[in-house]
Amino acid sequence: MRNANRRIVLRARPTGVAGPEHFAEEAEAVRAPGPGEVLLETLFVSVDPAMRVWISENPGYVQRIEPGETMRASGIARVLESRVEGLAAGDLVHARTGWQSHPTLAGEAVEKLPDGIGSPTDWLGVLGTTGLTAFFGMRAVGLVRPGETVLVSGAAGGVGQIAGQVARIEACRVVGIAGGAEKCAWLRDELGYHATIDYKAEPDLAAAVARACPGGLDVFYDNVGGATLDAALGNLALRARVVICGRISQTAASELYGVRNMGQLIGKRARVEGFVVTDFQHRFAEGRAWLTARMRDESLRHRVHEIAGLERAPEALGMLFRGGNTGKLVVRVGA
Amino acid sequence: MRNANRRIVLRARPTGVAGPEHFAEEAEAVRAPGPGEVLLETLFVSVDPAMRVWISENPGYVQRIEPGETMRASGIARVLESRVEGLAAGDLVHARTGWQSHPTLAGEAVEKLPDGIGSPTDWLGVLGTTGLTAFFGMRAVGLVRPGETVLVSGAAGGVGQIAGQVARIEACRVVGIAGGAEKCAWLRDELGYHATIDYKAEPDLAAAVARACPGGLDVFYDNVGGATLDAALGNLALRARVVICGRISQTAASELYGVRNMGQLIGKRARVEGFVVTDFQHRFAEGRAWLTARMRDESLRHRVHEIAGLERAPEALGMLFRGGNTGKLVVRVGA
Repeated sequence: MRNANRRIVLRARPTGVAGPEHFAEEAEAVRAPGPGEVLLETLFVSVDPAMRVWISENPGYVQRIEPGETMRASGIARVLESRVEGLAAGDLVHARTGWQSHPTLAGEAVEKLPDGIGSPTDWLGVLGTTGLTAFFGMRAVGLVRPGETVLVSGAAGGVGQIAGQVARIEACRVVGIAGGAEKCAWLRDELGYHATIDYKAEPDLAAAVARACPGGLDVFYDNVGGATLDAALGNLALRARVVICGRISQTAASELYGVRNMGQLIGKRARVEGFVVTDFQHRFAEGRAWLTARMRDESLRHRVHEIAGLERAPEALGMLFRGGNTGKLVVRVGA
Repeated sequence: MRNANRRIVLRARPTGVAGPEHFAEEAEAVRAPGPGEVLLETLFVSVDPAMRVWISENPGYVQRIEPGETMRASGIARVLESRVEGLAAGDLVHARTGWQSHPTLAGEAVEKLPDGIGSPTDWLGVLGTTGLTAFFGMRAVGLVRPGETVLVSGAAGGVGQIAGQVARIEACRVVGIAGGAEKCAWLRDELGYHATIDYKAEPDLAAAVARACPGGLDVFYDNVGGATLDAALGNLALRARVVICGRISQTAASELYGVRNMGQLIGKRARVEGFVVTDFQHRFAEGRAWLTARMRDESLRHRVHEIAGLERAPEALGMLFRGGNTGKLVVRVGA
């Protein structure tokens, strides 16, 4: 079917890690845009840990996706046909495309990319909600101050790679936890992390954190949760802030890990705080201005991990939970 | 031995709940005060959950007590002999007496009680660090605001009884968790708690919290920790604050409880924070002014649970961990 809209729909809710068996590909005729709508050709779609939450039985704070529905996702697309003022064929946009190749969307769901700032995939990664999550989580929730010691878990992931650099640029000493010597070397050599912990090579993570951060943690930016959170709680400095950004070790777990070190919060006068980046929507321009400036002066680097083919999006989602990606994971849809 | 200084010393570190088997009574001649010192006759000593931490192997944030040392404690005493300017025989003072009957202390360790404010035991309870812990924990850490729903665990204990009333006076809806129908009735009928949960009668504490607080918790003031903390984390409202004041269920536990509901902090944008009251020392006058005013207008009530006889202090410490006290626990030393 030429110019069909290919879309990936949820087939069955996963109980563990999500993968191809939980999704199906469908195709339908492209729908011509009505007044106030645009027809898009999707170039890239995002793959994020939160997606596993959206397709679960009880996502809690977001509307869940029902079987048969197209998978919700951010994407970068080119306008094919527009009935929206200010959008013309050929424009590049950032939109809630979902995992589909030719969505027809309301103009309000589409944002034209500014000229000359970042590449298309940057708008899913460092300049998208991924980078903004790192920026606001580290600064507005973690309240990092120069000279502090900052630990980041999931440091080689989409959010982690930016979070650690935000702290490094704020003159903190930054330590990253990642899986494997290759990721760790990249964090140190390319992203400027001061030290790394390869959790796959450490029999005792708490002891490894203690060695890497002998004065304790002022800020722990957590993307992993579970035993990683426990190891960090056992190594807090006075008045530490623990930022709960994600918990990828727990999201698809059959049984939740029990965190034993909560009592440390008393003597350390420490805080554990969760957040959702959309609460900072009114400050996204501020965050993007900072991130753009740091990209321009090359103090901020990042990697995009690209998978080719919309049909591989479900497989990519599973990769996240196996630590298969380095940097921000995206799926290339178009040619 | 007339006018001997009787003192309770640590004999052996407990591994579980502390009791008489971990302490010994000794007697020594009273020591006459040197320049800058006072000789006291202790009237009351305090018994606090934190004491179990001080005598443990690794208390973390305070100096531990060694076997053979007198048990550290706040007390109320009468001056018998003074070589300190401004203190005279007969004065009532608040001091770090320890569990002993006739300590000789440096003048700096002794604070004269102001006339006409509270009874002597009030200076160990509602006007002592117990009441100040409740006040600053609820207001400065919990940041309670009028109309919010506030849950207090250990609500019938020394700190809990005040904490709930601080929130009630701030126009919050206050729910207390306590053990037994009698304690619960007292919280509702005498202290003005709006609802109570008898944890001993509830097979599912999380469900009981959900029933008592259908809109979720804005503030959870936790003195208990462990499974109680988990039940509360499963019932948070958006932007909830969880104040970790104590964790009496865990302090003497042989194995720490693993908290499973940490993931709730993300979607609820919630915060868990520990504190130690001594960090608010520069604001104690403010706290005492508030508490005194509320005692005078009778909006703040409280109970002192008095045990007679210094030799029973170790037994009293064990009571705290068995929920044996209602209100602030003190030991009467003198006649």
